[in-house]
Amino acid sequence: MRIAINTGGGDAPGLNAAIRAATLTALSKGWEVFGIRNGYGSLYTDDPFIPLTASIVKRITMQGGTILGAANRGNPFEYPYQKEDGTWAAEDRSDEIVKMFKKHKIDALVAIGGDGSMYIAHKLVKKGIQIVGVPKTIDNDIYGCDVTLGFDTAVSTATEAIDKITTTAEAHQRVMVVEVMGRYAGWIALHAGLSASADVILIPEIPFIIDDIVNKIKSVESRGKEYAIVVVAEGATEKDGERFVRGKKIGQAELLGGIGEFLEKKLGKLTGKESRSLVLGHLQRGGMPTTYDRLISLRFGSAAIRCIDDGDFNKLVVMRENRIQRIPISEVAEKVKKVQTDSDTVITARDIGVSFGNESER
Amino acid sequence: MRIAINTGGGDAPGLNAAIRAATLTALSKGWEVFGIRNGYGSLYTDDPFIPLTASIVKRITMQGGTILGAANRGNPFEYPYQKEDGTWAAEDRSDEIVKMFKKHKIDALVAIGGDGSMYIAHKLVKKGIQIVGVPKTIDNDIYGCDVTLGFDTAVSTATEAIDKITTTAEAHQRVMVVEVMGRYAGWIALHAGLSASADVILIPEIPFIIDDIVNKIKSVESRGKEYAIVVVAEGATEKDGERFVRGKKIGQAELLGGIGEFLEKKLGKLTGKESRSLVLGHLQRGGMPTTYDRLISLRFGSAAIRCIDDGDFNKLVVMRENRIQRIPISEVAEKVKKVQTDSDTVITARDIGVSFGNESER
Amino acid sequence: MRIAINTGGGDAPGLNAAIRAATLTALSKGWEVFGIRNGYGSLYTDDPFIPLTASIVKRITMQGGTILGAANRGNPFEYPYQKEDGTWAAEDRSDEIVKMFKKHKIDALVAIGGDGSMYIAHKLVKKGIQIVGVPKTIDNDIYGCDVTLGFDTAVSTATEAIDKITTTAEAHQRVMVVEVMGRYAGWIALHAGLSASADVILIPEIPFIIDDIVNKIKSVESRGKEYAIVVVAEGATEKDGERFVRGKKIGQAELLGGIGEFLEKKLGKLTGKESRSLVLGHLQRGGMPTTYDRLISLRFGSAAIRCIDDGDFNKLVVMRENRIQRIPISEVAEKVKKVQTDSDTVITARDIGVSFGNESER
Amino acid sequence: MRIAINTGGGDAPGLNAAIRAATLTALSKGWEVFGIRNGYGSLYTDDPFIPLTASIVKRITMQGGTILGAANRGNPFEYPYQKEDGTWAAEDRSDEIVKMFKKHKIDALVAIGGDGSMYIAHKLVKKGIQIVGVPKTIDNDIYGCDVTLGFDTAVSTATEAIDKITTTAEAHQRVMVVEVMGRYAGWIALHAGLSASADVILIPEIPFIIDDIVNKIKSVESRGKEYAIVVVAEGATEKDGERFVRGKKIGQAELLGGIGEFLEKKLGKLTGKESRSLVLGHLQRGGMPTTYDRLISLRFGSAAIRCIDDGDFNKLVVMRENRIQRIPISEVAEKVKKVQTDSDTVITARDIGVSFGNESER
Repeated sequence: MRIAINTGGGDAPGLNAAIRAATLTALSKGWEVFGIRNGYGSLYTDDPFIPLTASIVKRITMQGGTILGAANRGNPFEYPYQKEDGTWAAEDRSDEIVKMFKKHKIDALVAIGGDGSMYIAHKLVKKGIQIVGVPKTIDNDIYGCDVTLGFDTAVSTATEAIDKITTTAEAHQRVMVVEVMGRYAGWIALHAGLSASADVILIPEIPFIIDDIVNKIKSVESRGKEYAIVVVAEGATEKDGERFVRGKKIGQAELLGGIGEFLEKKLGKLTGKESRSLVLGHLQRGGMPTTYDRLISLRFGSAAIRCIDDGDFNKLVVMRENRIQRIPISEVAEKVKKVQTDSDTVITARDIGVSFGNESER
Repeated sequence: MRIAINTGGGDAPGLNAAIRAATLTALSKGWEVFGIRNGYGSLYTDDPFIPLTASIVKRITMQGGTILGAANRGNPFEYPYQKEDGTWAAEDRSDEIVKMFKKHKIDALVAIGGDGSMYIAHKLVKKGIQIVGVPKTIDNDIYGCDVTLGFDTAVSTATEAIDKITTTAEAHQRVMVVEVMGRYAGWIALHAGLSASADVILIPEIPFIIDDIVNKIKSVESRGKEYAIVVVAEGATEKDGERFVRGKKIGQAELLGGIGEFLEKKLGKLTGKESRSLVLGHLQRGGMPTTYDRLISLRFGSAAIRCIDDGDFNKLVVMRENRIQRIPISEVAEKVKKVQTDSDTVITARDIGVSFGNESER
Repeated sequence: MRIAINTGGGDAPGLNAAIRAATLTALSKGWEVFGIRNGYGSLYTDDPFIPLTASIVKRITMQGGTILGAANRGNPFEYPYQKEDGTWAAEDRSDEIVKMFKKHKIDALVAIGGDGSMYIAHKLVKKGIQIVGVPKTIDNDIYGCDVTLGFDTAVSTATEAIDKITTTAEAHQRVMVVEVMGRYAGWIALHAGLSASADVILIPEIPFIIDDIVNKIKSVESRGKEYAIVVVAEGATEKDGERFVRGKKIGQAELLGGIGEFLEKKLGKLTGKESRSLVLGHLQRGGMPTTYDRLISLRFGSAAIRCIDDGDFNKLVVMRENRIQRIPISEVAEKVKKVQTDSDTVITARDIGVSFGNESER
Repeated sequence: MRIAINTGGGDAPGLNAAIRAATLTALSKGWEVFGIRNGYGSLYTDDPFIPLTASIVKRITMQGGTILGAANRGNPFEYPYQKEDGTWAAEDRSDEIVKMFKKHKIDALVAIGGDGSMYIAHKLVKKGIQIVGVPKTIDNDIYGCDVTLGFDTAVSTATEAIDKITTTAEAHQRVMVVEVMGRYAGWIALHAGLSASADVILIPEIPFIIDDIVNKIKSVESRGKEYAIVVVAEGATEKDGERFVRGKKIGQAELLGGIGEFLEKKLGKLTGKESRSLVLGHLQRGGMPTTYDRLISLRFGSAAIRCIDDGDFNKLVVMRENRIQRIPISEVAEKVKKVQTDSDTVITARDIGVSFGNESER
């Protein structure tokens, strides 16, 4: 067997561990293993497949980033190119990929990626490439799996940042707003906010009412706690309000500083307290993976090879009900796993006094 | 409702988070909440129940240890006392506990503890105390639950320690043996060893053959890696050999330095390489809980109150198949959850080249 | 003796360690110790001085923030108040402070603060209050001392953040701009940038030329490193250009996103590479102090008491030439310690290939 | 110029940063740079000098260990060899080293090492090799310099470990004894003990009286703190008692578990409290260097090249009075920098209530 591995989409801690485990497991079966650089990027070049050996993957389990690179220019089915007049257009270059796989006699691909990557994988499968996917995203929003590679590290980084911010918030009696990643799902905000004892957690799944946040801050203050921590997912949105994603109010071209800055100003004015905001941004994507992420990444990478070995293609290896399972990639594509607003974690948060900014309507 | 909370057995990071969540959840229901100090210890004193308030549990989610103390002198059913001649004996003082609960009109107990605590809880239930348990142990060996409070932090501490040891092992081309906790089950050794890229992992569930370890080290060396990392659970044992637990070879009174030191000497002699050992010991019990542990501890503590609220007593709230579930305490008592030697994690480890010290027999 | 302690200005890790050491040292001499809350804030209230005891300062060495609070409304000599028409004005309330000290028979004050606090201290000394200062600022720019309390932790936080950003920069082949604190002096940028292997470090002391940065990035790229890390102090400024401090171009009312965002856009355009920026902001002020900061904070706090014990007032206890020394507060007020552009650290940075953005002019 | 770099003695975090800075600084001057592997070890082989390039030293600033290896078999002047009868003897192989330097036209050596390495360097200088030294040891006991490369990281690791142990000590109301490195000088014990709020710090420079430790623990207990933390350097010794180093009582062949275990047992018996001990051992040598260590290591490495460039040989580049200075290697050899028992740090420790185990005699 000759297999290839690639990593696509945004960076996530654990990618290298998955690459290492997939490579070593495949080598142990006597297979040949190759890396594709930058998503599918190197397939358009003269150096499409890089041989992966035990020594190349040595000591990378603990390294953030990906040794295969992730600087892809885009979806092979809508690959961007610049026209003569300087404007951009897109073309379908997927046939080149299929050709390269055939030319180099690659039997199967381990595609490590998020929903975008799985969408592409799904279409490549239809063109005859045999693929097994590994679910990766710090956002934890891939449908069909309990947890994705990179999420635990992102939550830990966010929690640690909120911990730091909290001591300063207390010293200065401030409202501190921490904006974390999560455009469509509030997993990082929910887990990090709860772990770091936030007073308010705002997620896309629960549109917030600004007065409910203000009431929570005042109620906290009335019990002698003179500061408040608000954790907000970048995609959280005001009820009956507009949607802000990184400053872009959807439906308008208006540029603002994002939901964090919006809340900083609004809450400062409405509570009369000093307030500050912080956007954690790319900090959440990088760094050494946690032990938890190292372990599931190794297990995912190795399980993907066993999946190939079983001839069980077009599957995503996932962690579900605390076991590695295989589900059809088609089941996952174009869906998002959202926070259930009646889940045990949300109930726990409410029970210990966290506001989700919608208490007046419950 | 008036409820009590206690923590029993060895220290584990996350206890305070569980106490906080249980307290806040109960208070939110209008209940009164009390802490029992040092297991059941304070029940034998004049100050048996300490009122727990929101301000007492403030900012403790991230603190290691337990604000309730864990310095218990022992099992109430076999409570040790010193006889006049100076020798020690045991007596049953469980009735005093029952009496105290009645006298102070405590309706239910949240017992946060490991297998020992669940065994005691099980017997107290029979005497009429209404109990809901929360599974706590860094060893992760409580039957019936996928993961226990404290385990993720212990694994992280051990992984970080092995990471540190590795750079020195490489610089000095040594065999480094790291002994971690795990008398009856090898969970910490397996997870930390795999996460930290150990060459050899030795666990109680897989008796080792010393020559297989030596062969692994030599094979690693022959491929140009001049150091080796051996992670060993304290309860790991040589096949056909004796059992060492912290230096005490079972069946003999002989005192040695433990399995880590045993292996250091043996492997040093048999491989001809410089070797060193390190016992992580109590380092694994302490410190700030990881984000993962903070979160499950909060969820466990809060779920225990909802369990009481449902009148569903004599249950342990557990994480099983990635959901909070309730199982009878009786189902758990006197059992140990061992590592399955054909589990996905063990297979992954073998597939990426980890030796469990028994390759010659497979 | 009856002494008071206060903490002023921006938050810095180590304040609590200094408070603890000052308190315990004073108590060991049989003195009474009091805390003033929120700078001089509690002196305008009915509860001006809080007794500090051994149990109050227990276990706070490792805690960020300050148990005395830092939410001061301002300089006692120019205290802000709101006029009837809603506008703000300032009045001198320093006499109230002097009165309070007399009324409560406080013999001396340990003032832990930055340049602003020392300026106020200097003026209070002239009014007869006996003060010993402790130098605190994460910016490390207090004149006359080699290092200030809080700096090492801020540098560590920034370094760790840049480390994380770097793995992602490499995976995505990006230019990453990290903006750190430092309005007037580039200490954090210099130390964190050097420690985290930045390619470019921009500090207020060395005005930058944008083309020199672009040339550096291109030269790095030509040697096969396809990403670049730029660390910029918030007060760094373009040569012959305008000065940006947190988006406020001095001399104009224009609001921008700060120097980090400015560089992200400019460098993205000029290098043709994807670029991103991150503002670390308040992250740098909070969290658990490093060992280094704990130690100097304890030493500063304790030394301040010995300074009082010697009757040696109006002094700042500083670390200079690796020894605790005492210098007149007057010597420090209204000065800034800048990075010497020919210092050994800057020379080291240049010698290992770091660009300061001014190579074309050297 | 053609220069060589080696690293000798025990591992210390920061070695790689020093190698990187020395290499890059030398390359920037147009020199050729070579590494010697394993101290002087590779000079006895056919592959004595490895060319060091910018790409070899990329991204190693943050890595523990040393890319040059430190697995040396010993001092070239007393190099061990095995005689035919199996016993070991020593011979002078220093001429081989001199010959290799001449043969390969190496103009100078950057020797990064501790007191042992400086002793060897001193003797090689007499034989005509031009050497500049860089002071490295986690023990911080090299004469003539305020701080050595590796010390800050070792202290941080020890502090973090004691922090962890403390939460457990409190939960279980135990006496916890933590044994840290320091055979001849108590720097790690003093700095880590003070930073981590130890109750008792025992160092080689202050022989301890067991009753004074017991009194301290009892006095702490009488004020309501039911646990105690004792930090002990491995070379600390009982007044009028024997000296234990890692279990070897000097003057006797007796093997014990070291001073930590000795104190665990003795204090357990004398205080009636549960006690435990932990030996941090090699944990202190490894891991990622702190920001502080990265910075001084880079500065040392770069300064060594500038020293060579000045033709200023037989010098050690040191940090003294907060400046890089150069002192003759001869001044350093065979001396130890001990903790001054009347230093500001010791006085601070005593003033905040730390016992050094000799209070009855002061």
